[in-house]
Amino acid sequence: MITLSDIRAAHERIKPHIHRTPVLTSTVLNTLSSGNLYFKCENFQKVAAFKARGAFNTVYSLSDSEAANGVATHSSGNHAAALALAARTRGITAYIVMPEDAPEIKKNSVRRYGGIITFCEPTLAARESTLADVIRRTGTVEAHPYNDVRVITGQATATVELLEDVPDLDIVIAPVGGGGLMSGTALAATYLKPNIRIIGAEPELAGDAAISFRENRIAPPMPPLSIADGLRSALGTLTFPIIKEHVDEIVTVSEESIIIAMRQIWEVMKIIVEPSCAVPFAAVMEGKIDVRGKNVGVILTGGNVDLERLPWQK
Amino acid sequence: MITLSDIRAAHERIKPHIHRTPVLTSTVLNTLSSGNLYFKCENFQKVAAFKARGAFNTVYSLSDSEAANGVATHSSGNHAAALALAARTRGITAYIVMPEDAPEIKKNSVRRYGGIITFCEPTLAARESTLADVIRRTGTVEAHPYNDVRVITGQATATVELLEDVPDLDIVIAPVGGGGLMSGTALAATYLKPNIRIIGAEPELAGDAAISFRENRIAPPMPPLSIADGLRSALGTLTFPIIKEHVDEIVTVSEESIIIAMRQIWEVMKIIVEPSCAVPFAAVMEGKIDVRGKNVGVILTGGNVDLERLPWQK
Repeated sequence: MITLSDIRAAHERIKPHIHRTPVLTSTVLNTLSSGNLYFKCENFQKVAAFKARGAFNTVYSLSDSEAANGVATHSSGNHAAALALAARTRGITAYIVMPEDAPEIKKNSVRRYGGIITFCEPTLAARESTLADVIRRTGTVEAHPYNDVRVITGQATATVELLEDVPDLDIVIAPVGGGGLMSGTALAATYLKPNIRIIGAEPELAGDAAISFRENRIAPPMPPLSIADGLRSALGTLTFPIIKEHVDEIVTVSEESIIIAMRQIWEVMKIIVEPSCAVPFAAVMEGKIDVRGKNVGVILTGGNVDLERLPWQK
Repeated sequence: MITLSDIRAAHERIKPHIHRTPVLTSTVLNTLSSGNLYFKCENFQKVAAFKARGAFNTVYSLSDSEAANGVATHSSGNHAAALALAARTRGITAYIVMPEDAPEIKKNSVRRYGGIITFCEPTLAARESTLADVIRRTGTVEAHPYNDVRVITGQATATVELLEDVPDLDIVIAPVGGGGLMSGTALAATYLKPNIRIIGAEPELAGDAAISFRENRIAPPMPPLSIADGLRSALGTLTFPIIKEHVDEIVTVSEESIIIAMRQIWEVMKIIVEPSCAVPFAAVMEGKIDVRGKNVGVILTGGNVDLERLPWQK
């Protein structure tokens, strides 16, 4: 049971290490959507992703003896970079298990922050067994990307800041992957603004959370086809019950909408967001969420994009 | 003679119509440059360029009878869009003379804001004679992109805001094209912080302002080869004397540096800047400006980029 004071304590713990990201608005996007959209820019966060919040909270929650042997995770995404940075900031080692076919840009991002990479076959089974090996060998602590109380609590702090800056929100929307951000968002929003509407958005091609929500069981992940590579995970045993209890609705969007929404944010707001990050705005533009006349908080989750090739380019 | 109270009056005049743009910082870019860089994000301004300041100041400085027949300019860039928006906001007509080979994206930008385009041959002579025709035919007021007291005074307001947010600047850097922003920046900085160092940056391939500054005469524009298409104009008869008097130095950078700097800003700050906008940071990274240990204001001028093709893509 994560309480509001847990979230506030996490916020104090990570504040020295993370950015207080700005909330931006756009007249053009408000006109297009007929709502008042408030974008919480976690794409400007450390490592360019909200994942810094959960990673710093995890690393700085450890006692000195727990921390001594470092932290470990399997991830090819923003959590890996965030954990590497948090570990380096505390002066401990981060062991990152990555599939050998991960993009160079992601390998370099982990290396830049001093993470030690162990490569494995690109299957979930290989990732899990390799991580188990690393943990056995090094005596390190596992830092799961989402199914961890410390991570959920850390991710919740983005919504605390958003509601400090914009107290009058009617709706808050976050994307759903493994559910770390979604469950944290739901808890913070419920505690601070009980009548707010809490909505999750995910790609149809990674629509397992919508199924889980509807069928009241954790649906397995779908084949990794969505361009929103940060949202392909299944919900976790900790994140699912929180989402089930506190989230009002989970909507899904097409791949085409995600790319259009991403490009609109780039063109109009002049900020860089990754495909996963554009999913909530895509849901608004698809008409899946009725925002007319409402004050709507949208968590922009990250800005890590390969600038050599953009999704709308042939 | 533009005074500080002229600048303050312009600021009050345009405030209802422009964005108070944020000042962003980046630990990574500070580390790379060894300075403390404060980026004034005019790429988030209306029409995604500082040009909105000068255009709104010009349009709202007109008496009702002056304004009645609208405003006109020749421009294929951000000034054209800014003038169209300012005119539409006041409910008057903007006539924009553009070369027929201007990119579609720029034509559309003017049309989006309701500007009326007259096409001409892509030469300066044709642009000027076509504009003269339009003015004769419509009885409209010319709104020059930079060589106009109202424009210079409007552009100066960006530095007023920057120094309100970061009073302790040692240096301020702006790019130099026709000199509207540079002269406005120089005036505001001189009035508000007499000991600040004021530096202009321009591409070597559009290095006419550096020559003008050195040789104390207005050098002609160079062939339009630089990727920084906003900086190709020669200085004007009003902007040159202000720059000569108040700017400490004008430095030039290579085309390669501009592209590298633009990409670094995208990758690290997750914001979209156009090539012209990256020129001051390119000058810092080329070592042309000694920023070690200094607080440095950098005016980011605009974010209008064709997202179909980026300069670093083959």
